[in-house]
Amino acid sequence: MFDFSAIQFVDVIEFIGTFAFAISGIRLASAKKFDLFGAYVVGLATAVGGGTLRDLLLGVTPFWMNNTFYLWCTLFALIFVMIFHNHLIRLDSAFFAFDSIGLALFVVVGAEKTLSLGFAPWVAVVMGTSTGAVGGVIRDVLINEIPLIFRREIYALACVIGGIVFITLSVTTNLNVIFIELSTAAVVILIRFLSVKYHLSLPVLKGERKDILKH
Amino acid sequence: MFDFSAIQFVDVIEFIGTFAFAISGIRLASAKKFDLFGAYVVGLATAVGGGTLRDLLLGVTPFWMNNTFYLWCTLFALIFVMIFHNHLIRLDSAFFAFDSIGLALFVVVGAEKTLSLGFAPWVAVVMGTSTGAVGGVIRDVLINEIPLIFRREIYALACVIGGIVFITLSVTTNLNVIFIELSTAAVVILIRFLSVKYHLSLPVLKGERKDILKH
Amino acid sequence: MFDFSAIQFVDVIEFIGTFAFAISGIRLASAKKFDLFGAYVVGLATAVGGGTLRDLLLGVTPFWMNNTFYLWCTLFALIFVMIFHNHLIRLDSAFFAFDSIGLALFVVVGAEKTLSLGFAPWVAVVMGTSTGAVGGVIRDVLINEIPLIFRREIYALACVIGGIVFITLSVTTNLNVIFIELSTAAVVILIRFLSVKYHLSLPVLKGERKDILKH
Repeated sequence: MFDFSAIQFVDVIEFIGTFAFAISGIRLASAKKFDLFGAYVVGLATAVGGGTLRDLLLGVTPFWMNNTFYLWCTLFALIFVMIFHNHLIRLDSAFFAFDSIGLALFVVVGAEKTLSLGFAPWVAVVMGTSTGAVGGVIRDVLINEIPLIFRREIYALACVIGGIVFITLSVTTNLNVIFIELSTAAVVILIRFLSVKYHLSLPVLKGERKDILKH
Repeated sequence: MFDFSAIQFVDVIEFIGTFAFAISGIRLASAKKFDLFGAYVVGLATAVGGGTLRDLLLGVTPFWMNNTFYLWCTLFALIFVMIFHNHLIRLDSAFFAFDSIGLALFVVVGAEKTLSLGFAPWVAVVMGTSTGAVGGVIRDVLINEIPLIFRREIYALACVIGGIVFITLSVTTNLNVIFIELSTAAVVILIRFLSVKYHLSLPVLKGERKDILKH
Repeated sequence: MFDFSAIQFVDVIEFIGTFAFAISGIRLASAKKFDLFGAYVVGLATAVGGGTLRDLLLGVTPFWMNNTFYLWCTLFALIFVMIFHNHLIRLDSAFFAFDSIGLALFVVVGAEKTLSLGFAPWVAVVMGTSTGAVGGVIRDVLINEIPLIFRREIYALACVIGGIVFITLSVTTNLNVIFIELSTAAVVILIRFLSVKYHLSLPVLKGERKDILKH
């Protein structure tokens, strides 16, 4: 399927990110008693959902339709969970690291693609954030839970800040693109690391009573 | 950011509508303990979700990607809720009025855009309704509640009737476009006002037992 | 509205499939106390949701926007449920047969359209599956239930296998296209029939505890 000699550093990163996102979808779907195929679909939607919304909004063919990579990667994640299901808890720090690396990559890829299509820099920030954060929202909608990323440690905001770093450096400097990408990734990963280590969350708005939901 | 001298009446209406829709998303998200960023995202999705689905279906770039107006408007709504959260209940009639004005505008804009792209009049009715009603559905899916608009006072049907008025007048008469727009808006607002004042709801289908859900 | 003399066999099949999918959406929405308009919207989304996602991903105008057929068909399903609501349980085997026929048709139509637009065969399998299975997922998200198709008898997997049969025969043989379509449909219907008759389900992943949802 793949020409392994052509694998580049960015492919390895993309595998790690897709794998980590798919794992999170597969585990949560399994906890809700989804069958194997359902878990696969939720894993795939978690991994490619953000980039798919981005590509639909940008008016281009969704990235995963050009390459079987993402389907195989999700299948690999499914098999991994099937084999190691009793040991996954112990791997949580590894998954967190993989997830953060994936998030950082998705922000960079999303912002870069948006700029290259000629959209305004602020659209690139929105699309970088969508690429990183929307997959997790789709996952939580599919498993019928309130989206986690809006309620716990800083997640989507890390994408926004990473996106702002990326477009600021891209638009106002002549720095090497690799350097800009790595700086953006470092910012996203650092924010995620600090927010989880110190349990940093954004505040919740006060004063709304639950009964407006019955409205 | 904005050239204030160029602001027109329709911009004021659009601000009112976007603001009211965003407020409703932000308040409901806060009642479900979403953090500030989550509340912002739900507010934005409520305000621009319907028009975004419309534009994706019509095959054009989503309207909010051409203008930062909607992001600022949602930010303004968030700050407004943060400052006045203890007084929002007393403002409920004002919000209802704003929401109805926004709904009317969204129906007109949605139907008009669809016709201008050369689609059939009945597609314009569907798109006017989507523009008005889908944002609230996306909001309720994100906060993990059953969509309100399908269960309480007449809402989406007001959009359908408004859309039918709009295309009937547009296709069969030579009336001034402003007059057609205002007539449509008046119909939508009147239906909403009457249905809330007199608690008018559509009937619910009888005879289905809850247990088909376990099917 | 329709030129009845031009009705072909495939139109009859399409009516049966759309009708059966719409009925399932309308019944479940009614069980959750949606009003008539809400039930209509859920019925329509169940019937056209899968094909709409497919068409958005393929970059073409959603099929139902070219023809009022699907709106009328859903209205007919709504009226049918209103009239016969006390007798629907007794019609369950008929609905199951209609639903399976619809599923088979949607897989064939989805895969065929994808190939005709020049996408890779594996994309056609994904799109055939989406056309058949995504409508039911959208239905369950709208009524705020966990998607059924990921938890009970084999459903989406029947679409995948049907899609693989379709592209294998299309790409590797010179068989008549009608024969390929009927073979695909037969496979989908047979798998559905056997899986419901013998309660065949895919296994659920073990080892994930519910508490990762609180994570």
